[in-house]
Amino acid sequence: MTALLSPDALEAALRQIGAERYHNLHPFHRALHDGRLTRVQVQAWALNRYYYQARIPAKDAFLVARLEDPALRRLWRTRIVDHDGDIQPEGAEQNGGIARWLKLTDGLGLDRDYVVSTRGILPGTRHAVDAYVNFVRHRPILEAIASSLTEMFSPNIISERVSGMLRHYDFITPETLAYFTPRLTQAPKDVEFALDYVKQHARTPEQQEAVLDALRFKCGVLWAQLDALAYAYLSPGHVPPGAWRP
Amino acid sequence: MTALLSPDALEAALRQIGAERYHNLHPFHRALHDGRLTRVQVQAWALNRYYYQARIPAKDAFLVARLEDPALRRLWRTRIVDHDGDIQPEGAEQNGGIARWLKLTDGLGLDRDYVVSTRGILPGTRHAVDAYVNFVRHRPILEAIASSLTEMFSPNIISERVSGMLRHYDFITPETLAYFTPRLTQAPKDVEFALDYVKQHARTPEQQEAVLDALRFKCGVLWAQLDALAYAYLSPGHVPPGAWRP
Repeated sequence: MTALLSPDALEAALRQIGAERYHNLHPFHRALHDGRLTRVQVQAWALNRYYYQARIPAKDAFLVARLEDPALRRLWRTRIVDHDGDIQPEGAEQNGGIARWLKLTDGLGLDRDYVVSTRGILPGTRHAVDAYVNFVRHRPILEAIASSLTEMFSPNIISERVSGMLRHYDFITPETLAYFTPRLTQAPKDVEFALDYVKQHARTPEQQEAVLDALRFKCGVLWAQLDALAYAYLSPGHVPPGAWRP
Repeated sequence: MTALLSPDALEAALRQIGAERYHNLHPFHRALHDGRLTRVQVQAWALNRYYYQARIPAKDAFLVARLEDPALRRLWRTRIVDHDGDIQPEGAEQNGGIARWLKLTDGLGLDRDYVVSTRGILPGTRHAVDAYVNFVRHRPILEAIASSLTEMFSPNIISERVSGMLRHYDFITPETLAYFTPRLTQAPKDVEFALDYVKQHARTPEQQEAVLDALRFKCGVLWAQLDALAYAYLSPGHVPPGAWRP
Protein backbone atom coordinates (compact mmCIF):
# COMPACT_ATOMS: atom_id res chain seq x y z
CA MET A 1 0.00 0.00 0.00
CA THR A 2 1.37 3.45 -0.86
CA ALA A 3 -1.62 5.81 -0.92
CA LEU A 4 -3.01 7.41 2.20
CA LEU A 5 -6.49 6.09 2.92
CA SER A 6 -9.33 8.20 4.23
CA PRO A 7 -10.38 7.21 7.75
CA ASP A 8 -13.45 5.47 6.35
CA ALA A 9 -11.42 3.63 3.73
CA LEU A 10 -9.07 2.51 6.51
CA GLU A 11 -12.07 1.18 8.43
CA ALA A 12 -13.24 -0.64 5.33
CA ALA A 13 -9.78 -2.20 4.90
CA LEU A 14 -9.88 -3.32 8.54
CA ARG A 15 -13.30 -4.87 8.04
CA GLN A 16 -12.05 -6.64 4.94
CA ILE A 17 -9.28 -8.27 7.01
CA GLY A 18 -11.95 -9.52 9.39
CA ALA A 19 -13.98 -10.89 6.51
CA GLU A 20 -10.97 -12.90 5.36
CA ARG A 21 -9.14 -13.82 8.54
CA TYR A 22 -11.40 -13.74 11.60
CA HIS A 23 -11.58 -17.09 13.36
CA ASN A 24 -15.31 -17.53 12.78
CA LEU A 25 -14.07 -18.97 9.45
CA HIS A 26 -11.97 -21.65 11.15
CA PRO A 27 -13.06 -25.30 10.82
CA PHE A 28 -12.88 -25.79 14.60
CA HIS A 29 -15.11 -22.82 15.18
CA ARG A 30 -17.63 -24.04 12.65
CA ALA A 31 -17.65 -27.49 14.23
CA LEU A 32 -18.11 -25.96 17.70
CA HIS A 33 -21.09 -23.90 16.68
CA ASP A 34 -22.69 -26.48 14.46
CA GLY A 35 -22.82 -29.01 17.30
CA ARG A 36 -20.31 -31.41 15.75
CA LEU A 37 -17.99 -31.52 18.76
CA THR A 38 -18.00 -34.02 21.58
CA ARG A 39 -18.17 -32.86 25.17
CA VAL A 40 -14.45 -33.66 25.47
CA GLN A 41 -13.66 -31.42 22.51
CA VAL A 42 -15.72 -28.58 23.99
CA GLN A 43 -13.84 -29.11 27.26
CA ALA A 44 -10.52 -28.83 25.43
CA TRP A 45 -11.65 -25.58 23.83
CA ALA A 46 -12.81 -24.06 27.15
CA LEU A 47 -9.66 -25.22 28.99
CA ASN A 48 -7.32 -23.68 26.44
CA ARG A 49 -9.33 -20.55 25.88
CA TYR A 50 -9.16 -19.91 29.64
CA TYR A 51 -5.51 -18.95 29.19
CA TYR A 52 -6.50 -16.30 26.68
CA GLN A 53 -9.14 -14.92 29.06
CA ALA A 54 -6.70 -14.97 31.95
CA ARG A 55 -4.02 -13.00 30.11
CA ILE A 56 -6.30 -10.32 28.64
CA PRO A 57 -6.15 -8.11 31.76
CA ALA A 58 -2.33 -8.36 31.72
CA LYS A 59 -2.37 -7.31 28.09
CA ASP A 60 -4.59 -4.34 28.90
CA ALA A 61 -2.57 -3.41 31.98
CA PHE A 62 0.59 -3.25 29.84
CA LEU A 63 -1.21 -0.82 27.56
CA VAL A 64 -2.52 1.26 30.44
CA ALA A 65 1.04 1.39 31.78
CA ARG A 66 2.26 2.79 28.48
CA LEU A 67 -0.46 5.42 27.91
CA GLU A 68 0.59 8.87 29.03
CA ASP A 69 -2.84 10.51 29.10
CA PRO A 70 -4.91 9.85 32.25
CA ALA A 71 -8.11 10.15 30.21
CA LEU A 72 -6.98 7.39 27.87
CA ARG A 73 -5.84 5.29 30.81
CA ARG A 74 -9.25 5.65 32.46
CA LEU A 75 -10.99 4.52 29.29
CA TRP A 76 -8.71 1.54 28.73
CA ARG A 77 -8.85 0.59 32.41
CA THR A 78 -12.51 -0.35 32.00
CA ARG A 79 -11.32 -3.36 30.02
CA ILE A 80 -9.34 -4.61 33.01
CA VAL A 81 -12.44 -4.15 35.17
CA ASP A 82 -14.56 -6.03 32.63
CA HIS A 83 -12.28 -9.06 32.83
CA ASP A 84 -11.00 -9.02 36.40
CA GLY A 85 -14.27 -7.81 37.96
CA ASP A 86 -14.78 -5.62 41.01
CA ILE A 87 -13.65 -6.13 44.58
CA GLN A 88 -16.59 -7.97 46.12
CA PRO A 89 -17.89 -8.05 49.68
CA GLU A 90 -16.84 -11.21 51.48
CA GLY A 91 -18.94 -14.18 50.44
CA ALA A 92 -20.33 -12.48 47.34
CA GLU A 93 -19.82 -14.09 43.98
CA GLN A 94 -16.90 -12.71 41.96
CA ASN A 95 -17.96 -10.96 38.77
CA GLY A 96 -15.89 -10.24 35.64
CA GLY A 97 -15.00 -12.15 32.50
CA ILE A 98 -12.48 -14.54 34.04
CA ALA A 99 -14.90 -15.56 36.80
CA ARG A 100 -17.61 -16.08 34.19
CA TRP A 101 -15.29 -18.18 32.04
CA LEU A 102 -14.70 -20.42 35.06
CA LYS A 103 -18.47 -20.96 35.24
CA LEU A 104 -18.20 -22.39 31.77
CA THR A 105 -15.32 -24.72 32.67
CA ASP A 106 -17.14 -25.66 35.91
CA GLY A 107 -20.27 -26.42 33.92
CA LEU A 108 -18.25 -28.60 31.60
CA GLY A 109 -17.00 -30.62 34.55
CA LEU A 110 -13.37 -29.46 34.51
CA ASP A 111 -11.55 -29.15 37.81
CA ARG A 112 -11.22 -25.46 38.58
CA ASP A 113 -7.74 -25.64 40.12
CA TYR A 114 -6.49 -27.56 37.10
CA VAL A 115 -7.99 -24.99 34.72
CA VAL A 116 -6.50 -22.06 36.64
CA SER A 117 -3.07 -23.75 36.79
CA THR A 118 -3.04 -23.75 32.93
CA ARG A 119 -0.84 -26.86 33.23
CA GLY A 120 -2.79 -28.74 30.59
CA ILE A 121 -3.03 -26.14 27.84
CA LEU A 122 -1.44 -26.71 24.45
CA PRO A 123 1.97 -25.16 23.74
CA GLY A 124 0.37 -23.50 20.72
CA THR A 125 -2.20 -21.80 22.95
CA ARG A 126 0.46 -20.48 25.29
CA HIS A 127 2.69 -19.22 22.47
CA ALA A 128 -0.17 -17.47 20.68
CA VAL A 129 -1.55 -15.75 23.77
CA ASP A 130 1.91 -14.72 24.95
CA ALA A 131 2.62 -13.36 21.48
CA TYR A 132 -0.42 -11.12 21.83
CA VAL A 133 0.57 -9.88 25.29
CA ASN A 134 4.11 -9.18 24.07
CA PHE A 135 2.81 -7.38 21.00
CA VAL A 136 0.78 -4.99 23.13
CA ARG A 137 3.64 -4.61 25.57
CA HIS A 138 6.31 -3.70 23.03
CA ARG A 139 4.85 -2.36 19.78
CA PRO A 140 3.91 1.26 19.14
CA ILE A 141 0.73 2.25 20.95
CA LEU A 142 -1.13 2.78 17.70
CA GLU A 143 -0.47 -0.85 16.72
CA ALA A 144 -1.22 -2.11 20.21
CA ILE A 145 -4.62 -0.44 20.09
CA ALA A 146 -5.26 -1.65 16.54
CA SER A 147 -4.60 -5.24 17.60
CA SER A 148 -7.71 -5.07 19.81
CA LEU A 149 -9.94 -4.48 16.80
CA THR A 150 -10.85 -8.12 16.29
CA GLU A 151 -13.64 -7.11 18.68
CA MET A 152 -15.26 -5.38 15.70
CA PHE A 153 -16.17 -8.87 14.57
CA SER A 154 -16.97 -10.51 17.89
CA PRO A 155 -20.64 -9.62 18.51
CA ASN A 156 -21.62 -11.71 15.49
CA ILE A 157 -19.54 -14.67 16.56
CA ILE A 158 -20.85 -14.47 20.11
CA SER A 159 -24.52 -14.49 19.11
CA GLU A 160 -23.81 -17.40 16.80
CA ARG A 161 -21.84 -19.19 19.50
CA VAL A 162 -24.44 -18.84 22.21
CA SER A 163 -27.41 -19.85 20.12
CA GLY A 164 -25.53 -22.66 18.37
CA MET A 165 -24.13 -24.12 21.55
CA LEU A 166 -27.42 -23.97 23.45
CA ARG A 167 -29.22 -25.63 20.58
CA HIS A 168 -26.74 -28.40 19.94
CA TYR A 169 -25.21 -29.42 23.26
CA ASP A 170 -27.29 -30.73 26.12
CA PHE A 171 -24.33 -30.22 28.49
CA ILE A 172 -24.42 -26.45 27.86
CA THR A 173 -26.84 -24.19 29.76
CA PRO A 174 -27.49 -20.44 29.63
CA GLU A 175 -25.73 -20.17 32.97
CA THR A 176 -22.51 -21.79 31.73
CA LEU A 177 -22.54 -19.37 28.81
CA ALA A 178 -22.87 -16.36 31.12
CA TYR A 179 -19.46 -15.17 29.92
CA PHE A 180 -20.75 -14.11 26.60
CA THR A 181 -23.81 -11.99 27.39
CA PRO A 182 -22.00 -8.93 28.81
CA ARG A 183 -19.48 -9.15 25.96
CA LEU A 184 -22.29 -8.23 23.57
CA THR A 185 -22.34 -4.75 25.06
CA GLN A 186 -18.72 -4.47 26.29
CA ALA A 187 -17.11 -5.26 22.96
CA PRO A 188 -18.95 -2.58 20.93
CA LYS A 189 -18.12 0.05 23.60
CA ASP A 190 -14.44 -0.92 23.43
CA VAL A 191 -14.43 -1.02 19.66
CA GLU A 192 -15.95 2.42 19.31
CA PHE A 193 -13.05 4.02 21.16
CA ALA A 194 -10.28 1.90 19.61
CA LEU A 195 -11.55 2.29 16.07
CA ASP A 196 -11.90 6.07 16.43
CA TYR A 197 -8.40 6.24 17.89
CA VAL A 198 -6.90 4.26 15.04
CA LYS A 199 -8.76 6.20 12.33
CA GLN A 200 -7.61 9.45 13.89
CA HIS A 201 -3.97 8.55 14.61
CA ALA A 202 -2.95 6.51 11.56
CA ARG A 203 -1.94 9.53 9.52
CA THR A 204 0.63 8.14 7.09
CA PRO A 205 0.48 5.21 4.67
CA GLU A 206 3.13 3.47 6.80
CA GLN A 207 1.08 3.89 9.97
CA GLN A 208 -2.02 2.66 8.19
CA GLU A 209 -0.18 -0.38 6.92
CA ALA A 210 1.13 -1.02 10.43
CA VAL A 211 -2.43 -0.82 11.75
CA LEU A 212 -3.65 -3.30 9.16
CA ASP A 213 -0.71 -5.59 9.97
CA ALA A 214 -1.54 -5.40 13.66
CA LEU A 215 -5.06 -6.62 12.95
CA ARG A 216 -3.70 -9.37 10.68
CA PHE A 217 -1.34 -10.39 13.47
CA LYS A 218 -4.19 -10.53 15.97
CA CYS A 219 -6.36 -12.58 13.62
CA GLY A 220 -3.40 -14.97 13.46
CA VAL A 221 -3.32 -15.16 17.26
CA LEU A 222 -6.95 -16.26 17.36
CA TRP A 223 -6.63 -18.53 14.34
CA ALA A 224 -3.51 -20.29 15.60
CA GLN A 225 -5.26 -21.16 18.85
CA LEU A 226 -7.95 -23.00 16.90
CA ASP A 227 -5.33 -24.65 14.67
CA ALA A 228 -3.68 -26.06 17.77
CA LEU A 229 -7.01 -27.26 19.19
CA ALA A 230 -8.09 -28.82 15.92
CA TYR A 231 -4.85 -30.73 15.40
CA ALA A 232 -4.77 -31.94 18.99
CA TYR A 233 -8.40 -32.79 19.62
CA LEU A 234 -10.32 -33.22 16.38
CA SER A 235 -10.31 -36.75 15.03
CA PRO A 236 -7.82 -38.43 14.75
CA GLY A 237 -6.33 -36.19 17.46
CA HIS A 238 -2.65 -35.60 18.14
CA VAL A 239 -2.36 -34.41 21.73
CA PRO A 240 1.15 -33.03 22.42
CA PRO A 241 3.13 -34.55 25.31
CA GLY A 242 2.09 -33.00 28.60
CA ALA A 243 -1.18 -31.47 27.37
CA TRP A 244 -4.61 -32.35 28.73
CA ARG A 245 -5.91 -35.76 27.85
CA PRO A 246 -9.53 -36.51 28.63
CA MET B 1 9.56 -32.70 42.91
CA THR B 2 10.86 -31.91 46.37
CA ALA B 3 14.16 -33.79 46.73
CA LEU B 4 17.45 -32.38 45.48
CA LEU B 5 18.77 -34.49 42.62
CA SER B 6 22.44 -35.31 42.13
CA PRO B 7 23.87 -33.69 38.98
CA ASP B 8 23.76 -37.05 37.22
CA ALA B 9 20.18 -37.69 38.29
CA LEU B 10 19.29 -34.23 36.97
CA GLU B 11 20.89 -35.15 33.64
CA ALA B 12 18.91 -38.37 33.60
CA ALA B 13 15.70 -36.43 34.25
CA LEU B 14 16.54 -34.08 31.39
CA ARG B 15 17.16 -37.04 29.07
CA GLN B 16 13.84 -38.53 30.14
CA ILE B 17 12.07 -35.36 29.04
CA GLY B 18 13.73 -35.71 25.66
CA ALA B 19 12.63 -39.34 25.42
CA GLU B 20 9.02 -38.26 25.97
CA ARG B 21 8.76 -34.87 24.35
CA TYR B 22 11.42 -34.30 21.68
CA HIS B 23 9.95 -33.61 18.27
CA ASN B 24 11.47 -36.70 16.65
CA LEU B 25 8.31 -38.34 18.06
CA HIS B 26 5.98 -35.99 16.15
CA PRO B 27 3.89 -37.44 13.30
CA PHE B 28 5.10 -34.72 10.91
CA HIS B 29 8.71 -35.53 11.67
CA ARG B 30 8.15 -39.23 11.15
CA ALA B 31 6.43 -38.55 7.83
CA LEU B 32 9.28 -36.26 6.75
CA HIS B 33 11.96 -38.81 7.45
CA ASP B 34 10.08 -41.81 6.18
CA GLY B 35 9.60 -40.24 2.78
CA ARG B 36 5.84 -39.84 3.08
CA LEU B 37 5.76 -36.12 2.31
CA THR B 38 5.25 -34.47 -1.04
CA ARG B 39 7.73 -31.90 -2.33
CA VAL B 40 5.23 -29.19 -1.42
CA GLN B 41 5.06 -30.43 2.16
CA VAL B 42 8.85 -30.48 2.44
CA GLN B 43 8.85 -26.93 1.03
CA ALA B 44 6.38 -25.85 3.71
CA TRP B 45 8.61 -27.36 6.40
CA ALA B 46 11.77 -25.65 5.08
CA LEU B 47 10.01 -22.31 4.61
CA ASN B 48 8.66 -22.27 8.16
CA ARG B 49 11.75 -23.68 9.79
CA TYR B 50 13.73 -20.85 8.19
CA TYR B 51 12.18 -18.48 10.71
CA TYR B 52 13.49 -20.61 13.55
CA GLN B 53 16.99 -20.63 12.02
CA ALA B 54 16.85 -16.89 11.42
CA ARG B 55 15.93 -16.04 15.02
CA ILE B 56 18.44 -18.36 16.73
CA PRO B 57 21.27 -15.79 16.58
CA ALA B 58 18.94 -13.17 18.10
CA LYS B 59 18.10 -15.61 20.88
CA ASP B 60 21.79 -16.23 21.51
CA ALA B 61 22.67 -12.54 21.33
CA PHE B 62 20.07 -11.80 24.02
CA LEU B 63 21.76 -14.37 26.22
CA VAL B 64 25.24 -13.01 25.48
CA ALA B 65 23.92 -9.55 26.37
CA ARG B 66 22.79 -10.84 29.76
CA LEU B 67 25.89 -12.82 30.72
CA GLU B 68 28.23 -10.87 32.99
CA ASP B 69 31.33 -13.03 32.58
CA PRO B 70 33.39 -12.35 29.42
CA ALA B 71 34.52 -15.99 29.38
CA LEU B 72 30.91 -17.19 29.25
CA ARG B 73 30.10 -14.58 26.63
CA ARG B 74 33.00 -15.78 24.44
CA LEU B 75 31.78 -19.36 24.68
CA TRP B 76 28.16 -18.51 23.94
CA ARG B 77 29.19 -16.15 21.12
CA THR B 78 30.40 -19.13 19.08
CA ARG B 79 26.73 -20.05 18.62
CA ILE B 80 26.07 -16.73 16.93
CA VAL B 81 29.07 -17.33 14.66
CA ASP B 82 27.83 -20.84 13.85
CA HIS B 83 24.51 -19.46 12.63
CA ASP B 84 25.39 -16.04 11.21
CA GLY B 85 28.75 -17.11 9.73
CA ASP B 86 31.92 -15.06 9.32
CA ILE B 87 32.48 -11.81 7.46
CA GLN B 88 33.51 -13.02 4.01
CA PRO B 89 35.75 -11.44 1.38
CA GLU B 90 33.72 -9.85 -1.40
CA GLY B 91 32.35 -12.42 -3.81
CA ALA B 92 32.97 -15.35 -1.50
CA GLU B 93 30.08 -17.55 -0.49
CA GLN B 94 28.53 -16.75 2.90
CA ASN B 95 28.95 -19.51 5.45
CA GLY B 96 26.94 -20.17 8.63
CA GLY B 97 23.74 -21.98 9.43
CA ILE B 98 21.31 -19.43 8.01
CA ALA B 99 23.15 -19.32 4.67
CA ARG B 100 23.17 -23.12 4.58
CA TRP B 101 19.45 -23.25 5.34
CA LEU B 102 18.85 -20.99 2.35
CA LYS B 103 20.67 -23.58 0.21
CA LEU B 104 17.99 -25.99 1.27
CA THR B 105 15.15 -23.64 0.40
CA ASP B 106 16.91 -22.77 -2.88
CA GLY B 107 17.28 -26.45 -3.65
CA LEU B 108 13.59 -26.94 -2.99
CA GLY B 109 12.76 -24.24 -5.52
CA LEU B 110 11.53 -21.57 -3.09
CA ASP B 111 12.15 -17.94 -3.93
CA ARG B 112 14.90 -16.71 -1.64
CA ASP B 113 13.49 -13.22 -1.10
CA TYR B 114 10.14 -14.70 -0.20
CA VAL B 115 11.73 -17.09 2.29
CA VAL B 116 13.79 -14.34 3.91
CA SER B 117 10.76 -12.04 4.15
CA THR B 118 9.04 -14.73 6.32
CA ARG B 119 5.76 -13.36 4.93
CA GLY B 120 4.38 -16.81 4.25
CA ILE B 121 5.12 -18.58 7.51
CA LEU B 122 2.35 -19.90 9.72
CA PRO B 123 1.21 -17.81 12.71
CA GLY B 124 1.96 -20.85 14.87
CA THR B 125 5.58 -20.87 13.67
CA ARG B 126 6.03 -17.21 14.46
CA HIS B 127 4.44 -17.45 17.90
CA ALA B 128 6.50 -20.51 18.88
CA VAL B 129 9.82 -19.10 17.73
CA ASP B 130 9.12 -15.72 19.31
CA ALA B 131 8.16 -17.49 22.53
CA TYR B 132 11.60 -19.09 22.57
CA VAL B 133 13.42 -15.82 21.92
CA ASN B 134 11.40 -14.10 24.66
CA PHE B 135 12.04 -16.94 27.08
CA VAL B 136 15.80 -16.58 26.68
CA ARG B 137 15.52 -12.81 26.82
CA HIS B 138 13.56 -12.61 30.05
CA ARG B 139 13.88 -15.74 32.18
CA PRO B 140 16.68 -16.41 34.67
CA ILE B 141 19.96 -17.25 32.94
CA LEU B 142 19.95 -20.78 34.32
CA GLU B 143 16.59 -21.44 32.63
CA ALA B 144 17.66 -19.66 29.45
CA ILE B 145 20.69 -21.94 29.19
CA ALA B 146 18.64 -25.02 30.06
CA SER B 147 16.22 -24.26 27.25
CA SER B 148 19.04 -24.89 24.76
CA LEU B 149 19.39 -28.48 25.90
CA THR B 150 17.13 -29.94 23.23
CA GLU B 151 20.44 -30.10 21.37
CA MET B 152 21.26 -33.12 23.55
CA PHE B 153 18.84 -34.99 21.34
CA SER B 154 19.59 -33.40 17.96
CA PRO B 155 22.55 -35.45 16.62
CA ASN B 156 20.30 -38.52 16.42
CA ILE B 157 17.52 -36.68 14.67
CA ILE B 158 19.95 -35.07 12.23
CA SER B 159 21.56 -38.36 11.17
CA GLU B 160 18.12 -39.84 10.74
CA ARG B 161 16.91 -36.79 8.84
CA VAL B 162 19.82 -36.65 6.41
CA SER B 163 19.87 -40.34 5.57
CA GLY B 164 16.07 -40.60 5.42
CA MET B 165 15.62 -37.55 3.22
CA LEU B 166 18.40 -38.51 0.82
CA ARG B 167 17.00 -42.00 0.47
CA HIS B 168 13.39 -41.04 -0.02
CA TYR B 169 13.25 -37.76 -1.92
CA ASP B 170 14.76 -37.39 -5.37
CA PHE B 171 14.50 -33.59 -5.05
CA ILE B 172 16.92 -33.62 -2.09
CA THR B 173 20.68 -33.70 -2.65
CA PRO B 174 23.63 -33.79 -0.25
CA GLU B 175 24.31 -30.16 -1.16
CA THR B 176 20.83 -29.00 -0.19
CA LEU B 177 21.27 -30.76 3.15
CA ALA B 178 24.59 -29.00 3.83
CA TYR B 179 22.98 -27.28 6.81
CA PHE B 180 23.00 -30.40 8.88
CA THR B 181 26.56 -31.72 8.57
CA PRO B 182 28.29 -29.08 10.73
CA ARG B 183 25.48 -29.34 13.27
CA LEU B 184 26.63 -32.88 14.03
CA THR B 185 29.79 -31.43 15.62
CA GLN B 186 28.49 -27.99 16.70
CA ALA B 187 25.56 -29.30 18.74
CA PRO B 188 27.60 -31.67 20.96
CA LYS B 189 30.14 -28.92 21.64
CA ASP B 190 27.32 -26.56 22.67
CA VAL B 191 25.59 -29.20 24.74
CA GLU B 192 28.71 -30.09 26.68
CA PHE B 193 29.01 -26.57 28.03
CA ALA B 194 25.31 -25.96 28.64
CA LEU B 195 24.73 -29.29 30.34
CA ASP B 196 27.73 -28.82 32.64
CA TYR B 197 26.54 -25.32 33.46
CA VAL B 198 23.06 -26.50 34.35
CA LYS B 199 24.27 -29.47 36.41
CA GLN B 200 26.59 -27.17 38.33
CA HIS B 201 24.25 -24.21 38.88
CA ALA B 202 20.90 -25.88 39.62
CA ARG B 203 21.56 -26.24 43.32
CA THR B 204 18.07 -26.29 44.84
CA PRO B 205 15.03 -28.46 44.07
CA GLU B 206 13.26 -25.33 42.83
CA GLN B 207 16.11 -24.51 40.44
CA GLN B 208 16.19 -28.08 39.22
CA GLU B 209 12.46 -28.05 38.61
CA ALA B 210 12.83 -24.74 36.75
CA VAL B 211 15.54 -26.29 34.59
CA LEU B 212 13.33 -29.27 33.77
CA ASP B 213 10.44 -26.94 33.00
CA ALA B 214 12.67 -24.90 30.69
CA LEU B 215 13.46 -28.02 28.69
CA ARG B 216 9.77 -28.99 28.64
CA PHE B 217 8.95 -25.50 27.39
CA LYS B 218 11.54 -25.78 24.62
CA CYS B 219 10.30 -29.20 23.57
CA GLY B 220 6.90 -27.53 23.28
CA VAL B 221 8.38 -24.83 21.03
CA LEU B 222 9.69 -27.45 18.62
CA TRP B 223 6.58 -29.62 18.88
CA ALA B 224 4.15 -26.76 18.30
CA GLN B 225 5.95 -25.82 15.08
CA LEU B 226 5.30 -29.31 13.72
CA ASP B 227 1.70 -29.24 14.98
CA ALA B 228 1.14 -26.08 12.95
CA LEU B 229 2.79 -27.58 9.86
CA ALA B 230 0.87 -30.82 10.15
CA TYR B 231 -2.51 -29.15 10.51
CA ALA B 232 -1.85 -26.71 7.68
CA TYR B 233 -0.14 -28.93 5.15
CA LEU B 234 -0.77 -32.60 5.81
CA SER B 235 -3.84 -33.99 4.12
CA PRO B 236 -6.54 -32.65 4.19
CA GLY B 237 -4.63 -29.42 4.87
CA HIS B 238 -5.98 -26.28 6.52
CA VAL B 239 -3.74 -23.41 5.46
CA PRO B 240 -4.44 -20.29 7.57
CA PRO B 241 -5.35 -17.06 5.76
CA GLY B 242 -2.23 -15.29 4.52
CA ALA B 243 0.14 -18.27 4.86
CA TRP B 244 2.03 -19.84 1.97
CA ARG B 245 -0.03 -21.79 -0.49
CA PRO B 246 1.82 -23.87 -3.04
